[in-house]
Amino acid sequence: MIDDLILALDFGGTKHTVGVVNRDRSGAWAIKRVPAPPNADAAADCATVFDVAHKMLGLRNPAAIGVSFGGPVDYNTGTVRLSHHVPGWENRPLQAMLEDEFHAPARVDNDANVAALGEYRYGAGQGCASLMYITISTGVGGGWILNGDIWRGQDGMAGEIGHTVVDPAGPVCLCGKRGCVERLASGPYLAGHARALLEQDPAAGATLRGLAGGDPAAVDARLVAQAAAEGDPLAQGVLAEAAHALGMGIGNAANLVNPGRFVLGGGVTKSGEAWWQAVRAAARATALPEVLFDIVPAGLGDDAPLWGAVALAPEKTR
Amino acid sequence: MIDDLILALDFGGTKHTVGVVNRDRSGAWAIKRVPAPPNADAAADCATVFDVAHKMLGLRNPAAIGVSFGGPVDYNTGTVRLSHHVPGWENRPLQAMLEDEFHAPARVDNDANVAALGEYRYGAGQGCASLMYITISTGVGGGWILNGDIWRGQDGMAGEIGHTVVDPAGPVCLCGKRGCVERLASGPYLAGHARALLEQDPAAGATLRGLAGGDPAAVDARLVAQAAAEGDPLAQGVLAEAAHALGMGIGNAANLVNPGRFVLGGGVTKSGEAWWQAVRAAARATALPEVLFDIVPAGLGDDAPLWGAVALAPEKTR
Repeated sequence: MIDDLILALDFGGTKHTVGVVNRDRSGAWAIKRVPAPPNADAAADCATVFDVAHKMLGLRNPAAIGVSFGGPVDYNTGTVRLSHHVPGWENRPLQAMLEDEFHAPARVDNDANVAALGEYRYGAGQGCASLMYITISTGVGGGWILNGDIWRGQDGMAGEIGHTVVDPAGPVCLCGKRGCVERLASGPYLAGHARALLEQDPAAGATLRGLAGGDPAAVDARLVAQAAAEGDPLAQGVLAEAAHALGMGIGNAANLVNPGRFVLGGGVTKSGEAWWQAVRAAARATALPEVLFDIVPAGLGDDAPLWGAVALAPEKTR
Repeated sequence: MIDDLILALDFGGTKHTVGVVNRDRSGAWAIKRVPAPPNADAAADCATVFDVAHKMLGLRNPAAIGVSFGGPVDYNTGTVRLSHHVPGWENRPLQAMLEDEFHAPARVDNDANVAALGEYRYGAGQGCASLMYITISTGVGGGWILNGDIWRGQDGMAGEIGHTVVDPAGPVCLCGKRGCVERLASGPYLAGHARALLEQDPAAGATLRGLAGGDPAAVDARLVAQAAAEGDPLAQGVLAEAAHALGMGIGNAANLVNPGRFVLGGGVTKSGEAWWQAVRAAARATALPEVLFDIVPAGLGDDAPLWGAVALAPEKTR
C-alpha cells in the first residue's frame, strides 16, 4: 500500500521529529528525532529534516505530508509566519517547499492546532467531536476541534486562551495586559512567583528551598510541583493559584463555546493531583451549571503534534 | 410560489411576533405583533400565536417554519427547556406541535442564536462568515455564527458571554459568581450601580438625579445614558465601567474564537457614542494585536429574531 504512506513532520523549537507511517497505521511507525542544532536557521533546519525524511522514505514516495510547526502559520497558503525560536522562518512557504521536494500534497499548521487534532483522532479526545486542547508549559496555548475539524478562526488566531484575562488586577504579562492566564499559570511564571515568595520570606518554603539546593534562583516549575507533593505549603499555594487561574480561563471558554472536553498537555500538567483538582474546581465554579465538560490529561504526550500531522495530511493526492 | 412561504415566529417574554414571507423575500412581508397576555401560560401563548398565524396564512400552507424562542431550547429535538418568563413551557415539544398544526417542517432555537443568524443573513453580519451576536439589555446573551452556521456547542449552551468572568474581585452576579460580564454590563445592573452612587453621595450626579425627578429609585439604564450624554460625570463613569467590562469579555472571546465581527444589539447599545468607544477600546486592549475584529451595531433591531427565524426554517420540505 505504497500510496498510503504518510510523512509526518514536527518542527519544534529545540528538536524536530520525522515520522513515516501508513495512513491506516498498519505496519511499522518509523520515528526519528533530530535535535535542532544551536544557532540553526530555517534553511539549515529544513535541510536537516528533509534529509532525514529522504533517508527514512528510501525509494518510496509519500502519498501525503502533514506538518506541525511550532509557531504561527497561515494554513491556507501553508506559509510559516515566523518562529519565536529560530531565525529565517518569516514567510517561508513550507507547504510549497515540501510539495516540490517530495512530490506529494502537504498541509502545515501550528503545533497547538495539530496537537488538538492528534488528541482528537488518536488520543484523549477520541469520541468527542468538540474539544479544546491546551498546552501548559513555557507558555499557555490552545487549539480547537469543533465538529471534528480544526477551528482556526478568521485569521488563524483562535485558541489563544493563554492571553484571555482572568484577573484585571493581576501581574503584567509579556503581552502588556494584566492577569492573562499565561501570566498566572505557565511554568516559568509560577516558578517566578515561588522564587519571589522565597526571597521575601527566608523562613518560608523550606522544602522547596531545600530541593533547590538553598538557592531560590534554581527553582523551576518541576521543583515547585515536587515540593508541593512533599507537603510544602508555599509550593502548594503557588501551584493552587496557578491552577485556579487556568481553571477560570477554561470555565470562561466553556461558557463561550461549550465544547465537550478540555484536553490538557505540557509539562505543568505533571504537577500532581492537587493541581488537577484545583483546575477542575475553578473551571466548574466558573462555568454555568448547565455547561458540561470534562478536563482530562493528553493521551499522546509529546507525540501529539506528530500524530496530528498524520491526521492533517490531505486525503486525496493531487 | 406558494411552496416558498415561510412562517416565522418569535416567542418573547412580553410579546410574540408572527411573520409570513416568501423565502426569497419577494412580495409582501406580513408581520403581526401580539402582546403576551398577563398571567399567560405556555398553552395560552401557543393558542394565541397559532391562531394569529392561521389567520395570516388564510388558506395557504407554509413550506417551512422557523422559530425564535426567548429561553433555552434543545435544538435537536425542537423542545423548549423552559421559559424564564412564562410558566408551562418546560419540555414542551414546540417543533412537533408546529409540524402537526401546520403540516410543514419546523426548526426552533433560542433567541440569541436565531438573532445571530438573522444579523448574519440579513443584517450587520452580512459578508462575515464568523461572528458573535451579543444582546445587552436586561441580561447579556450571545450567539455564534461560525463558518455561516449557528454554533450551539455540545449541549446547546454556547454563547454565554454574559457569564464569563472578567473581574473575580467584582460584585456578585445572580449566578453566584463575582464579576460576570452580565453583572457589570447589563441595563438593570448598571442602573443599580448609578442608584447606589446617588444614594451614597447626595451632591453627586445632579443631572441624573434631575432626570429621575429627584428620586434615585427611578433611575434606569436609559436615564443613565441620557445623563451621560448631557455631561453628568457620575453617569459617564457608570456607563464607562459597564462598557469596559463588556469590552473585556469581547476581547477574551476574540482571543479564544477569533471571529471577524461582533454584532451588538439590545437596549444598552443605545447608550451613545462614548459607550461604543469604551467597549471598542477595552476589547482592543484585551485582544492580542494579531486578533482582528470589528464591533458594530445590530442592523435589524428588534426584528433580528424574526428574520433569523426565516433563515432557520428548513430548506427542504418533508
